[in-house]
Amino acid sequence: MSGHTTNLRLKLPLICVFLQLLTILLFAVFVCYDNQTNAKLWHEELKLHNKSHLDNEFYLRYPSFQDVHTMIFVGFGFLMTFLKRYSFSSVAFNFLIAAFAIQWSILTQGFFHSFHHGKIYIGIESMINADFCTGAILISFGAVLGKTSPIQLLLMTWLEVILFAVNEHILLDILGAKDAGGSMTIHTFGAYFGLMMSRVLYRPHLDKSKEREGSTYHSDLFAMIGTIFLWLFWPSFNSAIAAHGDDQQRTVMNTYFSLAASTLATFATSALVNAGGKMDMVHIQNAALAGGVVVGTSGEMMLTPFGAMIAGVLAGFVSTLGFKFLTPILASKLKIQDTCGVHNLHGMPGILGALLGVLVAALATHDTYGEGMTDVFPLVADGRRTAAYQSVCQLIGLCVTLGIAVIGGSLVGFILKMTCLGSPPDTQCFEDQIYWEV
Amino acid sequence: MSGHTTNLRLKLPLICVFLQLLTILLFAVFVCYDNQTNAKLWHEELKLHNKSHLDNEFYLRYPSFQDVHTMIFVGFGFLMTFLKRYSFSSVAFNFLIAAFAIQWSILTQGFFHSFHHGKIYIGIESMINADFCTGAILISFGAVLGKTSPIQLLLMTWLEVILFAVNEHILLDILGAKDAGGSMTIHTFGAYFGLMMSRVLYRPHLDKSKEREGSTYHSDLFAMIGTIFLWLFWPSFNSAIAAHGDDQQRTVMNTYFSLAASTLATFATSALVNAGGKMDMVHIQNAALAGGVVVGTSGEMMLTPFGAMIAGVLAGFVSTLGFKFLTPILASKLKIQDTCGVHNLHGMPGILGALLGVLVAALATHDTYGEGMTDVFPLVADGRRTAAYQSVCQLIGLCVTLGIAVIGGSLVGFILKMTCLGSPPDTQCFEDQIYWEV
Amino acid sequence: MSGHTTNLRLKLPLICVFLQLLTILLFAVFVCYDNQTNAKLWHEELKLHNKSHLDNEFYLRYPSFQDVHTMIFVGFGFLMTFLKRYSFSSVAFNFLIAAFAIQWSILTQGFFHSFHHGKIYIGIESMINADFCTGAILISFGAVLGKTSPIQLLLMTWLEVILFAVNEHILLDILGAKDAGGSMTIHTFGAYFGLMMSRVLYRPHLDKSKEREGSTYHSDLFAMIGTIFLWLFWPSFNSAIAAHGDDQQRTVMNTYFSLAASTLATFATSALVNAGGKMDMVHIQNAALAGGVVVGTSGEMMLTPFGAMIAGVLAGFVSTLGFKFLTPILASKLKIQDTCGVHNLHGMPGILGALLGVLVAALATHDTYGEGMTDVFPLVADGRRTAAYQSVCQLIGLCVTLGIAVIGGSLVGFILKMTCLGSPPDTQCFEDQIYWEV
Repeated sequence: MSGHTTNLRLKLPLICVFLQLLTILLFAVFVCYDNQTNAKLWHEELKLHNKSHLDNEFYLRYPSFQDVHTMIFVGFGFLMTFLKRYSFSSVAFNFLIAAFAIQWSILTQGFFHSFHHGKIYIGIESMINADFCTGAILISFGAVLGKTSPIQLLLMTWLEVILFAVNEHILLDILGAKDAGGSMTIHTFGAYFGLMMSRVLYRPHLDKSKEREGSTYHSDLFAMIGTIFLWLFWPSFNSAIAAHGDDQQRTVMNTYFSLAASTLATFATSALVNAGGKMDMVHIQNAALAGGVVVGTSGEMMLTPFGAMIAGVLAGFVSTLGFKFLTPILASKLKIQDTCGVHNLHGMPGILGALLGVLVAALATHDTYGEGMTDVFPLVADGRRTAAYQSVCQLIGLCVTLGIAVIGGSLVGFILKMTCLGSPPDTQCFEDQIYWEV
Repeated sequence: MSGHTTNLRLKLPLICVFLQLLTILLFAVFVCYDNQTNAKLWHEELKLHNKSHLDNEFYLRYPSFQDVHTMIFVGFGFLMTFLKRYSFSSVAFNFLIAAFAIQWSILTQGFFHSFHHGKIYIGIESMINADFCTGAILISFGAVLGKTSPIQLLLMTWLEVILFAVNEHILLDILGAKDAGGSMTIHTFGAYFGLMMSRVLYRPHLDKSKEREGSTYHSDLFAMIGTIFLWLFWPSFNSAIAAHGDDQQRTVMNTYFSLAASTLATFATSALVNAGGKMDMVHIQNAALAGGVVVGTSGEMMLTPFGAMIAGVLAGFVSTLGFKFLTPILASKLKIQDTCGVHNLHGMPGILGALLGVLVAALATHDTYGEGMTDVFPLVADGRRTAAYQSVCQLIGLCVTLGIAVIGGSLVGFILKMTCLGSPPDTQCFEDQIYWEV
Repeated sequence: MSGHTTNLRLKLPLICVFLQLLTILLFAVFVCYDNQTNAKLWHEELKLHNKSHLDNEFYLRYPSFQDVHTMIFVGFGFLMTFLKRYSFSSVAFNFLIAAFAIQWSILTQGFFHSFHHGKIYIGIESMINADFCTGAILISFGAVLGKTSPIQLLLMTWLEVILFAVNEHILLDILGAKDAGGSMTIHTFGAYFGLMMSRVLYRPHLDKSKEREGSTYHSDLFAMIGTIFLWLFWPSFNSAIAAHGDDQQRTVMNTYFSLAASTLATFATSALVNAGGKMDMVHIQNAALAGGVVVGTSGEMMLTPFGAMIAGVLAGFVSTLGFKFLTPILASKLKIQDTCGVHNLHGMPGILGALLGVLVAALATHDTYGEGMTDVFPLVADGRRTAAYQSVCQLIGLCVTLGIAVIGGSLVGFILKMTCLGSPPDTQCFEDQIYWEV
């Protein structure tokens, strides 16, 4: 990689303008308000179906949406500010690519989910799904944080959003797998996509930027803002598009307990693996969140509160061990430099969460779910498949996700290797000054 | 301006006690719970009109209110902490004047909007409107940040809240203009009011405090907390008092898209106007929010998603250019020292937003809005005016706002020139130490 | 106290694992989803009682819950980061003990409130109540901040949660006292419990850590994040478990006004008591919140807006004076070292709030409350007691709370004196380095 020029004066405006104009053009041609958002259509619905404004999905979903939105922009954004000289880039590039991803994924998800008579009809659920997709993009961002230019990141976003929608379509629409909180579609996909990109973009001389790849006292505190907001609102994340009523409430409770349990497991493990019995803020900032990831698939199921806690303990434990022992090995042996440790927070707990979904789906009985089976496992409820078959489909979903993430991440990694994309030289990684007036 | 004494030991307690006691007295005489907040009246309503608790406006508006509340106290408060030695004052004076403004504006708005039989009846919408008015005050605060004492700021708040209510009354009640998200009433009004105050309070020797009028690495990160929360919750801001159902949901979506698009435009423009192709945190902190301002009037209308994006791009672009080129000219040629650049974030995008409202109102047809016309343009719906006339009224509303803001801001500026109000000397601007135990 | 070893390598994992496994075991045996969270039961209820999903308590309580949750983890967590070298411990130990407390209090409160046929049935209200109990624990934590190990804190949490549930049961279920926002059960209880612990754990040589018991410029700003979020969401806190409809809305409004008024009183008093007329961030960070505490009991009653303001002014005034004059006396004369000044923010305003509840209950008439009396004072509404008797019960409730807090706090203090619990030596208080990789 020679000839690094990190001057973005023309390139960044060009790619931003290109992507934004393309988006506007496609929106102009394809995107319409749905019948809950359109003035005429909603008032027709009020009249024809004798509805009240309270039936507008806005009142059932908007608080959840706002929590998810906070996680994406505050949670992810600040979590990554831990680097001592890369906090501007962390929070601002997170902002930039998320702002693009939410627009672009409305289109890609819309083509798969709500394309009727040549138009994409959008409403509050489209916004939640767009934020979800953005979550996966930001997980991938975490793996390459500090080593990529905003141009590379926008390009990554452009392509990954498309592959995310393809994978999600296969899982949810074709396989009929359930994944309301995205253990597979968001966490596993985003993590392994990012890890493969990082593998392809491997920098053998990254140690030249070693002294900047750490935190300071206050940068660790800024990161805790991200951690706490992610932790707080994760119950909203997992439940945001769950079915109404019991499903949303149950998902919230399961996630709440799983997170609490994973927090205790993280503190315990962090002290245990340190020679001096001290704790490490990196573990607290990250592994305590693994409890949210691990119930992403099964949170809406009849997991039981104590089941959620066991899952959380396991996730916090595995995640902390990953930070301590696995991340160094990934870098030295597998040449995967994982800046934020997304393998520990999203990769392994994502797979665990998918497998937990496989298990809990297999255990589903009509006796436990009653009429509620229709919401959780509709295909089992109407007799089109057995719980065991549903379970197999969940497992296939995990494999498909891993496959698409690994292949997609590799391909995108190769595309990002183009030298003209403004990536920093090995001596200037994790450094705000190359992109910012500091 | 001679004889600056910034010792507040008696003056600040005196003005706080005076304003708070006056408020309590007026509340005691005039303010009552409305029929949704009063125990007796709500239970009568439940019975007489066969309502359920879900019909209580609380459940339809409270989540929006809390988001707006977060914007006012966290958003504005932290956005202004960017100054390296003035962060305490920024967040704390924001806190002080907002705490007073929400109380005072309940009274002033109440006299115009909900004064019946000698009493002001208040509920959740009054709180939202009070927070809205407070937004305008804090915008004006941004223009004079670092150059005014808390006593001046409280005096400003006292008077500006009254003028805000007058202007709002003329626009909404007399002209029948629509402005749910306040492009005119909040942003344009607050910005030009503040700019005129700053003009009157012009300090030719402000360069004596030059070295403190910048940021540090971490103060810029604190400011980003403000930015991101403002950006996140702006959809709630614009929709908080929109009509129920489709109107709220549509406003949220339009604002969401406008903000996302203005973010890309801001990054692009920021890199473009910098000789080294680097980006500037000041632009990201501010101009990325212009997308929220620009759809303040038209967000509830059938703007279409791609229309919202075009507006956002325009606003981000104009705002960033303003920071780069216009702010220095305002200071040197027009003698307007605009500390936070409110002209770029609220002034120009506010006017743009008002004009966009003029345009979108003119284009309103019954075919597009159907029965929903009643909510968006009630006077057009019931045939009392045409869309074209509505559009003209919107334009008159903008002119009235500019007029009242410019005259009011000048008058208040002259009042604040009194030397006894504890304002800092030119050598001590942007300095916490004069007001705080540091 | 000799032989301080602060190495937590085995002890912390041991206590975390013990407490978490115990919790999981008890959950497995006793805890079930309630009929709004269980798939089968909720769908039966939909059918049998002709309900709609909107009747699910989730939609009426979840936004309030999320605000409360934010206060517990962001509000309390960041408020305590003001110490210059103890910010990691403040936010992280807050996180740890809160994560345990929410689980443990589901059990202890469940045994008293929702134990039927050998099972505890839980839903969204259980989660809110668990967060409330956690608030009390974190108040106690504030009194001993910087002087206790995480092991001591977990032990404290384990025991205090039990006593909290006992006290709450006596007040609400036996005495029939009202305390929706917890002036007594949460603030008074948590404060005096913590103060007594601090008394028992008195450190005569704490001045050896004097130089770390202060703040830096940026640590004070981090603390303001906590302050502002607590202030913002306090209306949600006080109203989260109030009765539906007018009660929730009224509680929100009363709290909003009380907080605003206490903010002005705090600024005024802070400037007044400082020789140079400067303000002190410690007062702003804390005393401005006293307005929320003081209407914890009476917020749901027909307090009237101006009544709420008077309460707020009083609370802000008393609280600021406490920080200035009382805290040093407590430390020197009564040997109570109150790190965060919880006596000023929670203790005195909590008692004031309880007494305000005594007063407002005594004034309750059927003429004022109408049918709404059933929600606010059910025992008065159905004629089982008079308003005067209700008022007496409120007063008894305060005395019981003080008694249990003082005795309980002392006992727990003695237990925490065991030398094997990893508490820091006097020379190492308020120091992150003994517990953290810094």
